Amino acid sequence: MVSKNQIKLITSLQQKKYRFTNKLFFAEGVKVIQELLQSNFELEHLYTTQNDFEEVLSAKKTVIDDNDLKKISALSSPNSCLAVFKVPVEKKMIESGLILALDSIRDPGNLGTILRLCDWFGIHQLVCSKETVDIYNPKVVQATMGSIARVNVSYTDLNAFISKTKLPVFGTFMDGVNIYKTSLSQEGIIIMGNEANGISAEIEKLVQNRLTIPRFGEIQKTESLNVATATAIILSEFRRNS
Amino acid sequence: MVSKNQIKLITSLQQKKYRFTNKLFFAEGVKVIQELLQSNFELEHLYTTQNDFEEVLSAKKTVIDDNDLKKISALSSPNSCLAVFKVPVEKKMIESGLILALDSIRDPGNLGTILRLCDWFGIHQLVCSKETVDIYNPKVVQATMGSIARVNVSYTDLNAFISKTKLPVFGTFMDGVNIYKTSLSQEGIIIMGNEANGISAEIEKLVQNRLTIPRFGEIQKTESLNVATATAIILSEFRRNS
Repeated sequence: MVSKNQIKLITSLQQKKYRFTNKLFFAEGVKVIQELLQSNFELEHLYTTQNDFEEVLSAKKTVIDDNDLKKISALSSPNSCLAVFKVPVEKKMIESGLILALDSIRDPGNLGTILRLCDWFGIHQLVCSKETVDIYNPKVVQATMGSIARVNVSYTDLNAFISKTKLPVFGTFMDGVNIYKTSLSQEGIIIMGNEANGISAEIEKLVQNRLTIPRFGEIQKTESLNVATATAIILSEFRRNS
Repeated sequence: MVSKNQIKLITSLQQKKYRFTNKLFFAEGVKVIQELLQSNFELEHLYTTQNDFEEVLSAKKTVIDDNDLKKISALSSPNSCLAVFKVPVEKKMIESGLILALDSIRDPGNLGTILRLCDWFGIHQLVCSKETVDIYNPKVVQATMGSIARVNVSYTDLNAFISKTKLPVFGTFMDGVNIYKTSLSQEGIIIMGNEANGISAEIEKLVQNRLTIPRFGEIQKTESLNVATATAIILSEFRRNS
């Protein structure tokens, strides 16, 4: 059984302000929940329709039916389990090596996919502008496939952060140098811009290294790559010769 | 005004079987519709809430209100226009150069993003297994951002197609050779597999060149890349030295 108050609390966590005031977020599905449990995420409570998760103390686990799961899930086709976790205290930023910085990424799926790419390419620090979608948004948590447990994510004033860094700053533009023909350092901040508007004018001023992913189509009409696929290509280029 | 019959027809086109029987599909939004109009797609009828698209004959255009648009749109927040186009006759397959082949891609967003990547990287032919999501699915059309007008897409028995090709066949696996350290040809078929299961066993037998995108994370737990981001990295590698 899930009480009315629990349903109210969990569904409220779909909104950022309630995640913030309650310092809680939730994840759905066995794989993501297991990854979070194995990492340093503190479980508040697990709801499952199966007799699984033997490692979780019974005081922190409630077996519920499909009907109850539907009431708390954010998915149109709910999985078999949902777990509420405490939002961890933001860790100190890692200011060395390669850092990815996001200037107003708005789509939860894009942020989740980018976090998964950071994990794959060994990027330990993701820095998000305050306008970027919240990492504990349920759709982001879902799209990260567990990578949320392995990459340090910080929200900050991006302008202030980049203004004071001593690391080289990279950004992608239509008029940059060919990324395939530039030697890329293994230290620096790589900035990816908003889905519709790219990197903002204010941040663009702070970019010393303007890069371009060349187009190969003969009819050069494709206006841009999706930000997650562009991030994939850029991280691959930075790492391929490391 | 949109008649009841028109609403019934257009909403039915969200389903593949009705697109097939009516030989029609629809697109939403000014940008995508303009790209399709400028290409060889034959307009059946345009519905718009604005007094725009001056190039379209009035016999083929109906100005409607937001309420009517809502009734025919597949989007939760409808755009300002929706256009019904004829499904073109499938063009002859281009069997030279680099060809991308999809083995059961199921997510419309992934297929749309992959088509956009083909366009960017000058891949003229996309070959889809019959189990791959339909390219005229409204969510695919939306995600292609107009690239649907510039890449030739064919649905075929993938096994039969690959069995008879003389081109080299490439596929990505966990145990392949490092893609960064292999010389890649500018002719061949690159196969991308299903989101959950990768390349099927039947198709895997036909792959001569097993490739891997190396992981760089120290804790090597990331199980896989999203298929669209993996495609981005692979196409970038094939093209970067061309």
